[in-house]
Amino acid sequence: MSDETDGLETNSEAPSPRTKVVRGANRAEYRPDVIRDILAAGHLAHVGVITDDGPIVLPMAYGVRDNEILIHGSVANAMLRAGRSMEVCVTVTIVDGLVIARSPLHNSMNYRGVVIRGTATRIDDTQDHWDALKIINDHIAPTWDQARPPSEADLKRTMVLAVPLTEASAKIRAEGPVDDAEDLTGPHWAGVLPLTARWGEVIPSGDLAAGAGDAPASLTELHGVDAHQ
Amino acid sequence: MSDETDGLETNSEAPSPRTKVVRGANRAEYRPDVIRDILAAGHLAHVGVITDDGPIVLPMAYGVRDNEILIHGSVANAMLRAGRSMEVCVTVTIVDGLVIARSPLHNSMNYRGVVIRGTATRIDDTQDHWDALKIINDHIAPTWDQARPPSEADLKRTMVLAVPLTEASAKIRAEGPVDDAEDLTGPHWAGVLPLTARWGEVIPSGDLAAGAGDAPASLTELHGVDAHQ
Repeated sequence: MSDETDGLETNSEAPSPRTKVVRGANRAEYRPDVIRDILAAGHLAHVGVITDDGPIVLPMAYGVRDNEILIHGSVANAMLRAGRSMEVCVTVTIVDGLVIARSPLHNSMNYRGVVIRGTATRIDDTQDHWDALKIINDHIAPTWDQARPPSEADLKRTMVLAVPLTEASAKIRAEGPVDDAEDLTGPHWAGVLPLTARWGEVIPSGDLAAGAGDAPASLTELHGVDAHQ
Repeated sequence: MSDETDGLETNSEAPSPRTKVVRGANRAEYRPDVIRDILAAGHLAHVGVITDDGPIVLPMAYGVRDNEILIHGSVANAMLRAGRSMEVCVTVTIVDGLVIARSPLHNSMNYRGVVIRGTATRIDDTQDHWDALKIINDHIAPTWDQARPPSEADLKRTMVLAVPLTEASAKIRAEGPVDDAEDLTGPHWAGVLPLTARWGEVIPSGDLAAGAGDAPASLTELHGVDAHQ
């Protein structure tokens, strides 16, 4: 994403050299509470791994607990089988608007983003696996406890990986255009076009049994709510 | 993302082995028009590259023309400097809703996604570079022609990479829950919680010059519009 204010001071210290934000360093944040707030507001991670055919990036649901992010294992199945390193990058980005500058190469987006680099570990312990799946499931809406409990077969199919949050960086842009000084008196317009995602009204499945009842309140109460608050 | 209907037939042929969708193959699409529609509806790509420190995935604006996707070059600067391969993966995902099944491990999301694997090439030709930047800039709203034209220095700062769309796959999920047959008569609720992103009302920059006029119509007419249509 274009970022026009490189090279200034950061807000906190990067936990490792590879975690340090290079472009737009003045927008970088490494404080755990900032990172957790963004992860709580997002609902999709883009997970990158290295395969024999080059990098691949796949979208995944996720959850967060203590000092780790939890992801389903499908993206890493091939790597595990091949005995490759489990080095991953987990990136969560929320776009909050378009930033239109007087000069188009200063255009940008307002956004909140987290980049986590680290080694993924498979969760093997039975109780821990169950807990991790519940956390991923309940990340947006806590529906786990109202659903039919997972069977042994369900659980076996679904690997969970944990990636530590120790090497995480955040970047936040939440302001108007930053133009060159000589453009400020010029005739060109500049501003922000906000973007908001909202949850809609639940659509019950067409094949619900007569006794299935109403949608869980954890879903209906999201109607009209900002999905990234 | 969890996907419960693996192993069925695909809708078209994968252009290469590494492009073939493995999980949820029945939701895979390789037709160029389907891929282009999703890229037109999205506005953020997650670009993965391999660095000496492992994979990294960064969010970027993008544009599309002919048979290629265009991205800004910042993500690849380090690779270019290191003389590494320019193998990239460019992934665009639009989330359209949560899918709540009777059993939580059948929960999913409705989404439209494209995964492009390929070798990135830097655009060096002056006119081509200009055209590519305009396409990226105008991907959501055509504001390039109303802005202060880029200077030589602006252009030099902003590398553009092109990645062919020849090795691209799409995946679409747009339906209700898919539960196990034995759960259909059970007491558990199932359905979809839709998610919609909309453009807001433009916020003019606080430091606009008196002669800067009104916001371009290309921005104001997006007010209330579905951002992923």
